[in-house]
Amino acid sequence: MCGIIGIENNENAAVLTSAGLLTLQHRGEESAGITISGREKMRTFKAMGLVSRIFNEEILLNKLPGTVAIGHVRYTTSSKSSLINAQPFQISCIHGNISVAHNGNITNFSKIKELLFKKGAIFNHTSDTEILLHLIAMSKGSLADIIANSLRKLEGAFSLVILKDRTLIGARDSNGFRPLVLGKIENSYIISSESAAVEVIGGKYIRDIKPGEIIVIEDGQIKKSLIYNYNKTKRQTSCIFEQVYFSRPDSIMFEQTVKEARVKMGEYLAQQMKNIKADIVMPVPDTGYFAALGFSRTSGILFENGFIRNHYVGRSFIKPSQNLRNLTATLKLRPIGEVVNGKEIILIDDSIVRGTTSKRLINVLKEAGAKKIHFALSCPPIIGPCYYGIDTPSREHLIAANNSVEKIKKYLNVNSLIFLSLDNLVKACSSGNKKSDVFCVACFTGKYPTKISKIA
Amino acid sequence: MCGIIGIENNENAAVLTSAGLLTLQHRGEESAGITISGREKMRTFKAMGLVSRIFNEEILLNKLPGTVAIGHVRYTTSSKSSLINAQPFQISCIHGNISVAHNGNITNFSKIKELLFKKGAIFNHTSDTEILLHLIAMSKGSLADIIANSLRKLEGAFSLVILKDRTLIGARDSNGFRPLVLGKIENSYIISSESAAVEVIGGKYIRDIKPGEIIVIEDGQIKKSLIYNYNKTKRQTSCIFEQVYFSRPDSIMFEQTVKEARVKMGEYLAQQMKNIKADIVMPVPDTGYFAALGFSRTSGILFENGFIRNHYVGRSFIKPSQNLRNLTATLKLRPIGEVVNGKEIILIDDSIVRGTTSKRLINVLKEAGAKKIHFALSCPPIIGPCYYGIDTPSREHLIAANNSVEKIKKYLNVNSLIFLSLDNLVKACSSGNKKSDVFCVACFTGKYPTKISKIA
Amino acid sequence: MCGIIGIENNENAAVLTSAGLLTLQHRGEESAGITISGREKMRTFKAMGLVSRIFNEEILLNKLPGTVAIGHVRYTTSSKSSLINAQPFQISCIHGNISVAHNGNITNFSKIKELLFKKGAIFNHTSDTEILLHLIAMSKGSLADIIANSLRKLEGAFSLVILKDRTLIGARDSNGFRPLVLGKIENSYIISSESAAVEVIGGKYIRDIKPGEIIVIEDGQIKKSLIYNYNKTKRQTSCIFEQVYFSRPDSIMFEQTVKEARVKMGEYLAQQMKNIKADIVMPVPDTGYFAALGFSRTSGILFENGFIRNHYVGRSFIKPSQNLRNLTATLKLRPIGEVVNGKEIILIDDSIVRGTTSKRLINVLKEAGAKKIHFALSCPPIIGPCYYGIDTPSREHLIAANNSVEKIKKYLNVNSLIFLSLDNLVKACSSGNKKSDVFCVACFTGKYPTKISKIA
Amino acid sequence: MCGIIGIENNENAAVLTSAGLLTLQHRGEESAGITISGREKMRTFKAMGLVSRIFNEEILLNKLPGTVAIGHVRYTTSSKSSLINAQPFQISCIHGNISVAHNGNITNFSKIKELLFKKGAIFNHTSDTEILLHLIAMSKGSLADIIANSLRKLEGAFSLVILKDRTLIGARDSNGFRPLVLGKIENSYIISSESAAVEVIGGKYIRDIKPGEIIVIEDGQIKKSLIYNYNKTKRQTSCIFEQVYFSRPDSIMFEQTVKEARVKMGEYLAQQMKNIKADIVMPVPDTGYFAALGFSRTSGILFENGFIRNHYVGRSFIKPSQNLRNLTATLKLRPIGEVVNGKEIILIDDSIVRGTTSKRLINVLKEAGAKKIHFALSCPPIIGPCYYGIDTPSREHLIAANNSVEKIKKYLNVNSLIFLSLDNLVKACSSGNKKSDVFCVACFTGKYPTKISKIA
Repeated sequence: MCGIIGIENNENAAVLTSAGLLTLQHRGEESAGITISGREKMRTFKAMGLVSRIFNEEILLNKLPGTVAIGHVRYTTSSKSSLINAQPFQISCIHGNISVAHNGNITNFSKIKELLFKKGAIFNHTSDTEILLHLIAMSKGSLADIIANSLRKLEGAFSLVILKDRTLIGARDSNGFRPLVLGKIENSYIISSESAAVEVIGGKYIRDIKPGEIIVIEDGQIKKSLIYNYNKTKRQTSCIFEQVYFSRPDSIMFEQTVKEARVKMGEYLAQQMKNIKADIVMPVPDTGYFAALGFSRTSGILFENGFIRNHYVGRSFIKPSQNLRNLTATLKLRPIGEVVNGKEIILIDDSIVRGTTSKRLINVLKEAGAKKIHFALSCPPIIGPCYYGIDTPSREHLIAANNSVEKIKKYLNVNSLIFLSLDNLVKACSSGNKKSDVFCVACFTGKYPTKISKIA
Repeated sequence: MCGIIGIENNENAAVLTSAGLLTLQHRGEESAGITISGREKMRTFKAMGLVSRIFNEEILLNKLPGTVAIGHVRYTTSSKSSLINAQPFQISCIHGNISVAHNGNITNFSKIKELLFKKGAIFNHTSDTEILLHLIAMSKGSLADIIANSLRKLEGAFSLVILKDRTLIGARDSNGFRPLVLGKIENSYIISSESAAVEVIGGKYIRDIKPGEIIVIEDGQIKKSLIYNYNKTKRQTSCIFEQVYFSRPDSIMFEQTVKEARVKMGEYLAQQMKNIKADIVMPVPDTGYFAALGFSRTSGILFENGFIRNHYVGRSFIKPSQNLRNLTATLKLRPIGEVVNGKEIILIDDSIVRGTTSKRLINVLKEAGAKKIHFALSCPPIIGPCYYGIDTPSREHLIAANNSVEKIKKYLNVNSLIFLSLDNLVKACSSGNKKSDVFCVACFTGKYPTKISKIA
Repeated sequence: MCGIIGIENNENAAVLTSAGLLTLQHRGEESAGITISGREKMRTFKAMGLVSRIFNEEILLNKLPGTVAIGHVRYTTSSKSSLINAQPFQISCIHGNISVAHNGNITNFSKIKELLFKKGAIFNHTSDTEILLHLIAMSKGSLADIIANSLRKLEGAFSLVILKDRTLIGARDSNGFRPLVLGKIENSYIISSESAAVEVIGGKYIRDIKPGEIIVIEDGQIKKSLIYNYNKTKRQTSCIFEQVYFSRPDSIMFEQTVKEARVKMGEYLAQQMKNIKADIVMPVPDTGYFAALGFSRTSGILFENGFIRNHYVGRSFIKPSQNLRNLTATLKLRPIGEVVNGKEIILIDDSIVRGTTSKRLINVLKEAGAKKIHFALSCPPIIGPCYYGIDTPSREHLIAANNSVEKIKKYLNVNSLIFLSLDNLVKACSSGNKKSDVFCVACFTGKYPTKISKIA
Repeated sequence: MCGIIGIENNENAAVLTSAGLLTLQHRGEESAGITISGREKMRTFKAMGLVSRIFNEEILLNKLPGTVAIGHVRYTTSSKSSLINAQPFQISCIHGNISVAHNGNITNFSKIKELLFKKGAIFNHTSDTEILLHLIAMSKGSLADIIANSLRKLEGAFSLVILKDRTLIGARDSNGFRPLVLGKIENSYIISSESAAVEVIGGKYIRDIKPGEIIVIEDGQIKKSLIYNYNKTKRQTSCIFEQVYFSRPDSIMFEQTVKEARVKMGEYLAQQMKNIKADIVMPVPDTGYFAALGFSRTSGILFENGFIRNHYVGRSFIKPSQNLRNLTATLKLRPIGEVVNGKEIILIDDSIVRGTTSKRLINVLKEAGAKKIHFALSCPPIIGPCYYGIDTPSREHLIAANNSVEKIKKYLNVNSLIFLSLDNLVKACSSGNKKSDVFCVACFTGKYPTKISKIA
């Protein structure tokens, strides 16, 4: 998963882009980068690590002069984790200097790369994004045409911000898999993965970039906006998992905040679990939080926050050895004994992927004295990998792809195991606009909205 | 403020100490250090920055061999912020190698330093802790005697862990200002600022170290435990602000968790505010959280989490300029428009110090559409600085020391401003054991439990 | 200027390449990199800075597995100084993974880039080397054909090592501007900018790569060696400045060591200066050293080392202000008063470029008491910039391009100013093999052996 | 070994001190530090590593305000290598803030430390220097008295610069083991380990600080200068090895430059070796250089520089394994085959300590074709360790302490092995002033000028 943002016609382009990236940091912690232009020669600054460690005042104010910028935070999906694959990608070609930041996964990458190889193209990265730059360099016409022509050749999921001179371009694949929104601050347009980033930097959310849309912005004006492509079903299939897990709660999706969708997931879960009695309902922080709140409101069961999360614990702490078994688990997330001891608990999490983390958490809860645990998930069982940009593991590692609910319940050693039904999930996510046929739910159904080539 | 921990008789002494420091990191983010002994020569590793960045597997497993360790995280109070003042302080003296980690503030520091100067002592640090090491080096007798004699000369607030060979010593000033607890894991004793650190690393909380107590532990045995000193009033005066703000919610204080005390603060606030009607009650994350929950339960007003906190934003982001006014505020803490827009809100925070942060938050809430804001604090107005280890600013910067509640209400531009009464605060914090005369509440009353010398 | 090296069929490929780069470090201190293949997937490790700081045991032994490697040290010539331009350049194309390291300067870079742009090529770097990779990717045939076809399109100076799978390729432009030698160690061939690097790592120098030659090596066998191109004059024109200044004294060029050529430069200078009497002859360290030795032997004038050079002084020391005038000069190079005081001195340096450094040195010598200074240079006046890989400044900054010898003498404030005649320089450099028509001396004559396009 | 420098009454105190440290860097590469005072509060900046990497313009100009400074570069002798032992040591005591930088080795360290322990002193470092600070803090009287009283208690070797407010103090032990000179630049006095540092920063050498002298300087005035102590023999015994190896060639010692002393060592060696015929005389760079020059002048044998030294090779390169045998040796120092091949060589080095480096060099020379090697050293065999500040290994590792010259010759596999006689060494080092009874030659004779306690 990745986060992207672009802003144009703004004296604080670098600062606002970095603030936007900070707001999108949950979408990728591996690398971050900014390309800027509009005043001096286009330049890109990127590095491995967190935004707050890469971009300081010195770099933002002195090393990144310009008025138009795009930024990217990355959590690797289809390519290797190293600086060489950190985005944005800035290149020069017959059209001049161009830079691109990409969220998604191009599914016909290998096929196009083959074709490009035959035309003599060279690849510097192992990322799928580079093929777009080649296609752009080989296209002719107006800037919008060039990009439209190039994007029509791509299959899969891609939300893009593109920078050229003083022009900012946003584009989204024809299924609209990954989110992309348009916003404005004073005389500057913003394009961003999530509306929260638009609003945090002081802008107003205007609308979503439409599936298959290209939008070309310059000097505070929308120069062009066109639908360059329709997918076969002519249907939007936006990733519903953004609302289950990925997006910030304060981002707007389908006319309600993600927070609201999650509250509703909890409400529907409560309806599904009417027969289950418990002393308290508590979330796995932080994503289970709003669903648990919704559950409590509907069920009347007392909401409690029984886990304390330690945000200081990074990934790099010592590997757990036999005699330090639960150490790394409890360091990050520790139950408050007083809250859970002797209680019958409804525990709400967003989803189960491999099952190992859930098992460890439930184990820790039991050691803290939980009497009974009813484990509720705010989405259906995940039975298929994502080919559209989420780094779910391959099918063999998906616990629900290989085990019945009954078996998973036993493995986790819980008293009940309840998954939100797909219907209820879709209702929760679409209650804002009453549209319910706009989601990609392939990871729950195994039915993918596009043809999937074999992925290397 | 600082956090301290010690563990003895344990093969994983360095790893467990670092895990304990991670759990105590909220008590100080400036520097961290560990001293270890028991196998090879005593050694200390310390650096500026966060625990997770200083202590990695390589350092913990290879550079810190030993079975007895003490650790320290520091947020500067009375001395300069630099590596030279990072703790623990390891020295050699006539008694051998000794290391000390200190939480608190020695109020007769200058006077003793003067005396030590006259005896020819040299000081390497600007920290108040160094005088203790001089006093120890100049004392004679058994280890317990040496430390008891030295501590009797000190006034003010100090919780200490001391390391010598295979011996771990814990000590607390006779008022018991700062917390210090005893715990155990298998055959190893642990001494720590908070019980949460004991439990996260797998240990059990046994009891608090008593005010004026020294405890000497070696090879898994408590060799000695004595009350070396009584204060003039013979009364415990533990910092009540630990429960309002500093301590982890899952730590145990006076026989209940801090979480429970905070829930009760909210309940009492709800009682004080019976006449105020509102649509929702919402906390300022993260410390206002449990009080808001308690408020909601008592008042029946809907609990909402209207702020999204971004944990990725560090201190070092760009300084706010005029045209980026609210950027740094909203980057860290952003209201969800949907939740607050058009609402009459009860906003719960722990306390008001300077008032500037509160003002900015309230401003941001109003811009997000809040109709009315009733601002409730889970403690009384702070009218006096702390001389016992909390880095509150001097009196002139304390808004409540210089302004009436009415004036503060106007400054903050809120519809109501309610402080939890001191009685209710004490009740909330002591409901576990029904003892209510055990607290230092000097910052709310201006009546200090010890004589205060002028502080340099 | 840059240094390149490649080695194949060797278990210690990474270690030997890094040792070779250490030996070639004088050719470029800005960045260093190694590409390795032959066992696992091809990978490249490169960074800004000195070889000794980039490549440590951990990286060489664990991060660079393989048996075939190429390496590069860089001092920027025609492109920007940044990591993006650090070599080797590793790409993937229709022929697979290929990596290139380049020493020299491609003079028709802009023209070819224009053509490549039209074919839709994208450029990731600002370096001239990238066009070669594009040409290779667009060529067809055997590996040797592909590279030969590509190189035939290039004009200017280039010595290259190229890596593909287990194959190491060396190539040199048809003028042979920049040096490139073939060596062998046990069953492994080595290709390197200088023979010293071959010998330091334990190999034997075999022969020079010929102008216009491509050599293809695999599994310890020379698979192919061909002359792919002749230049118009069918004459070798190797940079004579390598022997004056750039190369290590122990490298072999035209059948004698560079040290021997420099000794001869001094001998010829002594012949040119028969009429000048002096107390001592002394070099400007380190390049003037051997010429001064030769001068002393021929003239009978006492050789003295009157400057002490401080190798600890880096580039980054404080900028000289008015009141610290000579500080940075004497920090690096300080005259021994005892040696120079009251003496008539023949001072030997390699060349004068801008003249500013010489002026400072002479000034410092005078302040140390030198009575008379006769300044002798082991090459003729430099009147033209180099278009073949040496970063001489543009003509307007070349003191000898804009001033008569008499004027320079006055500017430097010396008693005599003698340049080695071109005839004598050529004789000194070719005495090994008696060939004297093999040199590029364009910087002394302004007559360039190739057509020069305008350089961006 | 260490290098020290101090300067007072100077607006550029920090810059000039760092320039002085760069000039003294050969005396210690492990850590460097500067203490400054005279304007703001005294402060110290120190770190592990080279001066050029620790002190940049930002630190020198902005972080070190003041007019009086002392500096230190360190190569560990008697204590552990870590930042805690980096100097200068700044402390506060009854006399205020004081900082000390020390070159030498206090031989009664353990005894005094014992006494100080009994008085209740605490030690923060493992360095011997700290006892001086304790003695100062415990003394009374004028500043000169305090320091004189303290120094009278010390035995062994110490040259010191001490900083207090605007006062710079220099002091030397009563034997004058380690060098210390007085210099002046405009209205500022300088005290430094070597005269070269005085002169590089633009000052004039005035005189040596006398054995047993304290000099107190303030505001450009020598306030006091006294001999605080005489040693038992009332004889100066300055380390002769400074001239053989340690000091910069351009430093003045006993009224001649070290360079001149080394030339004379070579001349006397030539006299000792009249019967040995050879084709060339060549030095081991860099210390053998001037002796080889002197040898050549006296003997008439051709001087050649047959080794190329690579200054880019640091200590941290890969550990030599069996199949990379000579790699690390030749990387640093490589013979020019052309020079040595088939030659009978007189090879000049400064000294033999363990013998291993010499063996490797001679081996490399033989592999390069040397026919015969006559190995000449510009000092006698080293048979005793140094207790006065040079980190020679213990007696068991000194090859000459355990083997006859004949045996060493066999071990090194040379045709002759000649050591400069002690008489000749003393003559070479004292020819400037005709005094010959001023040297410590204990490492050659085993007769130490002071009583040696057992060293921990």
